[in-house]
Parts: sequence; structure tokens; C-alpha cells
Amino acid sequence: MENRIIDNLTRIAGKDGVLRTPEDLAVYSYDGTFAEGIPEVVVLPQTTEQTADIVKMASESRIPIIARGMGSGLAAGSIPIRSGGIVVSFTRMNRILEIDTHNSTVRAQAGVVTADLQAEVEKHGLFYPPDPSSIRHSTIGGNIACNAGGPRCLKYGVTGNYVLGLIVVLADGRVLTTGGKPIKDVTGYNLTGLFTSSEGTLGLITEALLRLVARPRYAKTALVEFISLADASRAVNAILAEGIVPASLELMDQTAIACIEEAMHLGLPTDVEATLIIETDGSDEQTVLREIEAAGRICKDTGARLVKVARTEEERSGLWKARRSISPSLARKAPNKLGEDITVPRSAIPEVVQRLRAISAKYGLPVVIFGHAGDGNLHPNILFDKRKREEWEKVEPMVREIFGTALALGGTLSGEHGVGVLKRPYFEQALGPVSVEVQRRIKQALDPLNILNPGKMFQE
Amino acid sequence: MENRIIDNLTRIAGKDGVLRTPEDLAVYSYDGTFAEGIPEVVVLPQTTEQTADIVKMASESRIPIIARGMGSGLAAGSIPIRSGGIVVSFTRMNRILEIDTHNSTVRAQAGVVTADLQAEVEKHGLFYPPDPSSIRHSTIGGNIACNAGGPRCLKYGVTGNYVLGLIVVLADGRVLTTGGKPIKDVTGYNLTGLFTSSEGTLGLITEALLRLVARPRYAKTALVEFISLADASRAVNAILAEGIVPASLELMDQTAIACIEEAMHLGLPTDVEATLIIETDGSDEQTVLREIEAAGRICKDTGARLVKVARTEEERSGLWKARRSISPSLARKAPNKLGEDITVPRSAIPEVVQRLRAISAKYGLPVVIFGHAGDGNLHPNILFDKRKREEWEKVEPMVREIFGTALALGGTLSGEHGVGVLKRPYFEQALGPVSVEVQRRIKQALDPLNILNPGKMFQE
Repeated sequence: MENRIIDNLTRIAGKDGVLRTPEDLAVYSYDGTFAEGIPEVVVLPQTTEQTADIVKMASESRIPIIARGMGSGLAAGSIPIRSGGIVVSFTRMNRILEIDTHNSTVRAQAGVVTADLQAEVEKHGLFYPPDPSSIRHSTIGGNIACNAGGPRCLKYGVTGNYVLGLIVVLADGRVLTTGGKPIKDVTGYNLTGLFTSSEGTLGLITEALLRLVARPRYAKTALVEFISLADASRAVNAILAEGIVPASLELMDQTAIACIEEAMHLGLPTDVEATLIIETDGSDEQTVLREIEAAGRICKDTGARLVKVARTEEERSGLWKARRSISPSLARKAPNKLGEDITVPRSAIPEVVQRLRAISAKYGLPVVIFGHAGDGNLHPNILFDKRKREEWEKVEPMVREIFGTALALGGTLSGEHGVGVLKRPYFEQALGPVSVEVQRRIKQALDPLNILNPGKMFQE
Repeated sequence: MENRIIDNLTRIAGKDGVLRTPEDLAVYSYDGTFAEGIPEVVVLPQTTEQTADIVKMASESRIPIIARGMGSGLAAGSIPIRSGGIVVSFTRMNRILEIDTHNSTVRAQAGVVTADLQAEVEKHGLFYPPDPSSIRHSTIGGNIACNAGGPRCLKYGVTGNYVLGLIVVLADGRVLTTGGKPIKDVTGYNLTGLFTSSEGTLGLITEALLRLVARPRYAKTALVEFISLADASRAVNAILAEGIVPASLELMDQTAIACIEEAMHLGLPTDVEATLIIETDGSDEQTVLREIEAAGRICKDTGARLVKVARTEEERSGLWKARRSISPSLARKAPNKLGEDITVPRSAIPEVVQRLRAISAKYGLPVVIFGHAGDGNLHPNILFDKRKREEWEKVEPMVREIFGTALALGGTLSGEHGVGVLKRPYFEQALGPVSVEVQRRIKQALDPLNILNPGKMFQE
């Protein structure tokens, strides 16, 4: 990269804001996947204006720009696909700018860590529901760029449901403001919705205006054991059909439970095909109680062996500890794992689980299944040892079959992780050529020089 | 229009499907506004394929295409802006194609009347919440094209929150399918969201896959009287801050109540500045009751003079009859009315009402205020007599001041009606030049010949 460009970046973001040593660059070459790509330079702007100046310069010099939050992504969306380019990291843009208690909104810079934002608004009795697993380290900007989900999204909706407005730096360095505090807004195209989940390919999100709700004061959580996974899946549908919308309806299959139990010794049942974690919440204690009881009754009616409602906050957090410990538990079980993020119509869950098991048996590698059953969003995790070539070589064909299964059952590639690099090969298969062509036209219209996160989503 | 084109349209849609007499064309030259524009021909396709063939032909011959449902729009979005062009009416595409009770979805053609769809899914214990006032005659396709709202959208969200997928005929006649039954889907750009509220300018929606929820079994409705409108507005915020989300939180100002009372003699209080209609609903009777009681208590605490909860279904429907009769009541009060659709951050409601009153006083024409207070979405209606030139001449400057007020208070032009023709002059003022330019680029990318609903949204 020319010195002139480095000088300009330093002028824009300050000496602290430009990283170039191999050690520093290495830190920004990873995300939550196996992929890797070393940027030529990392810039850490502190304002929208600095971000705009960086993009303007990059655009003039035709240098790729890769936006990055905390790099916790699971689709290789925030790392350079080819080495080179400018990684724009938003970690220094981590200020909460306004909490408006009258309108229940928060305005924050893109680099605010989601859990920090949640904690801050909760001090005001407000609540930002989306809760991706990465909540303690991922950023609001990254969550929006991928339209992140989480267990609580069954009742509350995904990140995109909370984005009222954005400030976005466009490919030519101009600054676009979308939306505003009004809840309803149909003035023009839904640009807020278009930039949400665009994975840094249409613009760089520097600031977000988010809708908040009242903090639920009560929550009740139950662990439900099902001898048959098909029954567990029927229970999910039966609960929702009754008009009960739990905050969370999480499924863990036998393998997932066994992994957690092996690692944590929490006393979970390892002899059942499935467990559900059901949580109801709200502002009225009686209602929350009534709903968890009704959900428990429905589970019993659909064949649950045991419904155990946590009686104390300690028991409750124990259940969530179990749920959250799946990923670390898997790490103890095998050196490597590859977690997918398929979604299917929720009626297809029993069938998809059966087919995933068949794929596991065919290739002889464990596939652990857990996820947000109420949304039909499952995370099949393939366990393997990358050092063993015969195992590593199975992973790609297994992934292909997993995606094929999801698509065959009316599902899709990703419920909350995004396409990034890893799902590119399946993108057109999932959406069809017309959809991909329409998306390419939008990309071309907003980023004609293809400098924003090139090589993501679309095959080049 | 060349005979060749008429012949082709007849070949595609059949003799019954092509209308050309002046009487027939006149029927399709209006919507719910003052605007008027006579099409050259009206075509009524029965399938997506026919629609695609029509658009392909129109595209080849550079003939404008104006999509139309039942013509109940309130922004002149579905009538030819200049006389001429092909109006594609979806009234013959009125079939419900599938109700999936397992996944709580319905697939319907664009021309299904929204109330018909609701009635049909309710037979299965399911519920399609969006309830625009036009529900008994407007269509699903039109609702989606405008992202229609309604009183129930406070709790349940607007039309767009229920659209899982679309079939869209693009400007060149190709057919695009977006989305699917999975609730969560982040595979690629949010095209479903982009076509929703695009007002027929990016494609013709021929079919929709909609998400349903369980039908609420219980509802409680209260009429609350406030001597001070500011107190009514504070009550709205206080209820939501408590974590209670009523299905509806509707505001009617003194003038609105007086108009209804004059026309209907329902015994409404005409000596208060404002009334709220509050409705709670859900699957659990106790909860619904508890919530209406809590909401009533909060209203009392914030200065309500009277909280009257309907004790019977008859009383309840009486309240909604009052709410729904505002528009016809206004018609008795003055020969003409112009209803706007501004939204503001809900904390700004007292201020916006005060300013609307000042505008009314300044011009000497009544401005009736009612709307969805919980969403900050108000419908100020100017009453006048178009035949009196001095009144008619005041309308445009009043509208300009109303929009100016909404924008000055952080609001926008439209919460549920759309931009169409009527709000075009204020579009750039509301969104800024960068936003409008980005939207123009998207329009240009997807409709390079500008044949889809030309002259809408954007100034030419």
C-alpha cells in the first residue's frame, strides 16, 4: 500500500487509529470460523466523519474496505477474503449516545458491545431483547450487519425488528441517514431493512437508533424431558398454537445434552432424545407463571416425561448455564467443530433432525443438534479433528448435505449468522438465479466499484 | 394504444380480462383521494404467469404499468399519474392458496381482500393481525405495497411484520420469489422487506406468504376520558413504560368526538379534550383483564376523568363502531376532507396536537385529530368545501405546514398510507437528498426503463 494512503489514514484516524505491524494485523485476520485473511492495514475510526473520509479515500484508490466489529462472526463475513485491503474496525466507536426513556429508544455507535448496551438501558427499566450467544463480545453494528438472533427472538423478534434507523457510510463516502424515532414509517423504500443483514457489502453502519421495550420483571424457566424428539417438536407447535409465546423455546438433542453433562456434571438427563428449555417472561408475575404452567401442561399432553420448573433464580440461571455451555462443551469432545445455522418451517424439525442423524451416521462424524426450535432455527455442529485428513475431508460434503436437507424441507441456509464467505457456494442454490441477479443489481447500484467487502455473499 | 397490444393483452388475460370502454376505465381512474388519472386499458390477470406476460409485453413496448388492488389507497399511488398506460388490477387474483396450521402461515394471491383472508384463517384458530380501516375492501397485495397499518399494529406490528415471502413480477417480466416459511432468514439481502412498501415501483406483487399468530380468545376494551389532551398523551407513554402492550391505544380529540357524536348520538363525552380507546387481548382471560385494569389505573393516575371498561361484547363493539365512524362522521360535517398520516416520536404527541390546532386556527379551517397514539401515528383531517375557492386554496399550505410540523418534531410524512403522488413534493424534504438518490439508484437498478408506476414517490 502506498505511503500516501497510510499517511492519509493516519491523518484521518490518528496514529493510534492505524495498525500495520504483522502482530496487529494477525489479530484482525480471524473471526469465529476457520477462515483467515490478513488485511494490509487496520483503521479504527472514532466518528462517522472519519469513517466517511476513510471510505472516500479508499474509493478513490479502489481499495477494498472490510467493516469489522469484534470479529465474532460465524460466516467469515468480516475478514478480507483475499489478503489485502483496509479493515475498518469499529471497536473505538463504542459510545451510547442517547437513551430516550420517553420514546423507548437508544442511539449508539456501531462498536458498542451488545451486552453493554443491554446493561445500560436496563438501568432505565428498558430492555433490548436480541441476545446472540456472542452478546458479551459482539457489537451492535455487527449484529445489525448480520441481523443477529438469539434464544429470546422467538417472542421478541430478531435484531432487525429493533432497528429504527441507521447512519451508514456509502461506498463513495457519502453519509446516509435512514429512519427515525417514529415506530411506523412508510416514507419511501425500507432502506433501514435493506442495510440490515447486508453484511458490510452495501455500506458501513456507523450508528444505530434502536427501539426498546419495557424490561420484563418476571421470568419462569422450565426444563422439559422428552423420550421422543418427535414429541418435543410436536410440543413446540402445540404451545405456539395455544397462543402462548414463550420468550424462548430451545431444543437440545441427546448428543448435545451428553456433551454438556460430560463437561459440566449438571445432572441433566442423558437418556432422553431431547430436552426443551422453555422460558416465559413479562411484566405480570401471575401471567408469567400461568404461561409456564400452561406450556408445561401442553408438554405433558404431548408426551413429556418430566417438566421441571426452576424454583429459584439459581436454578433458572443453571438451566441457561447449561444451554450456553454447549459450545465450550463441544470443544472438549472434539478438537474442532463446524456449527451451521439452518432454518426450516418449524413443522419440519422432526424430519430435519432425523435426516441430520442419517448424515452423521453416513459419514461417521458426530452431528450435535441444538437451537431455537420455536423459530425452526437449528445449529447442527459437526465434530471432528482437522488434523485427521480423513475427517476434515468429510466436513465439506457433510455441510453440503446439511444445506441440501434444509432447502429440500423448505428451509434456508442461515437464520442468524449470514452468508459471508462460507455459504457463498450455496447462495444461488438457496435463492435461485433471479434473486441473486436482483441482489447483484442492488449491490452494483450502491457499490459500483465493488470496494465494500468484496467477495462476500456473491460468487465472484 | 396499438391494436397489436390490445390483441396481445386479450390473448394473455382473455376477453373478460381486458377493459377499454370509457365507463370501465373511469372506474379505475380514482382511489381514496382527490387525484384522478384515466388508464388507456385495464387488464385483470388471473395468474402470476399472465401478469409476467403482460409486464414483458409492456416492457418491450415501453408502456407504463400501474398495479392496483381495490383502489382504496390514500396517496394516489395506484392511479395513472398522467392519463395512459396499463392498469393491472389484481381483483381476479383473489384465491387463498394454502393455510398451513402447522407452521401458522397462509399463502394468498395479491387480490384477496384482507378481511376475507382474516375470516378464513380465523376458522382455523389463526389470526392475521394487521387491520387497516379499509380492511373490508383493500387487498393483501395493496396492503403489502403500502405496508399498511391499523389500530392493532401497536401490539402486533404492521403488515410488513407478517410478510414471510413474496412472488413478484419484475420490470422485465421475470418472476422473483423471496423468503419462505422459516421465521428467521438472513440468506442475502432482505428483498421481501424492500418490495414491501415499494408502492408498485419496483415490481408487481402477485402472491404473498404471510405469518399468522394464534387467535386471541379474549379482548377487553376501555373508553377513557381526559380533560387534558396532554394527560392522555402522558398516559399512553406511562402504560407502555409499565410493560403493558395493549392491542390498541387510539386517540380521538375533542373535534373528532364531537363529529362522531353529532352524527351517531352514541353518548360520547364532548366536554373533554381527548379520549383514548384502549384494548387488551390475548389467550388468557385473567391476563387480558389484569392488563386492562392496570392500564385503567395508570390512566387514572395520569389524570383521566373516567375509565369505562366495556362489560359486554355489545358495549365493546359500540366503542369500535365509534372509532370506525370517524371518517363517515366527518363527511357529514363538511363536504370534503383531506386526511393525513403523519408519525412522530410518541413523546411529541402533545406538542404536535398543539401545533395542529394552531394551524387550524391560523387558516380558519377545522383540523380533526385522531389516530394510533401508541405508535405516534396521527391522522389530522382538514375539513373544507372544495367548491369554495378560498377554502380549497388553504388546503395545500395547511398540508405543507402539517408535514413541516411532523418533520420538525422528528417525525415523518407517512405511517401507513405511503408517498404515492400526494407526498412527492415533500419526499426529499423528509428524507434528505442522499436517501432520495440511493432510492433512485435502486429504482433505476430494478426498473431501468421506468415503466413500473412511473411518477410515484419520486419527483420526475
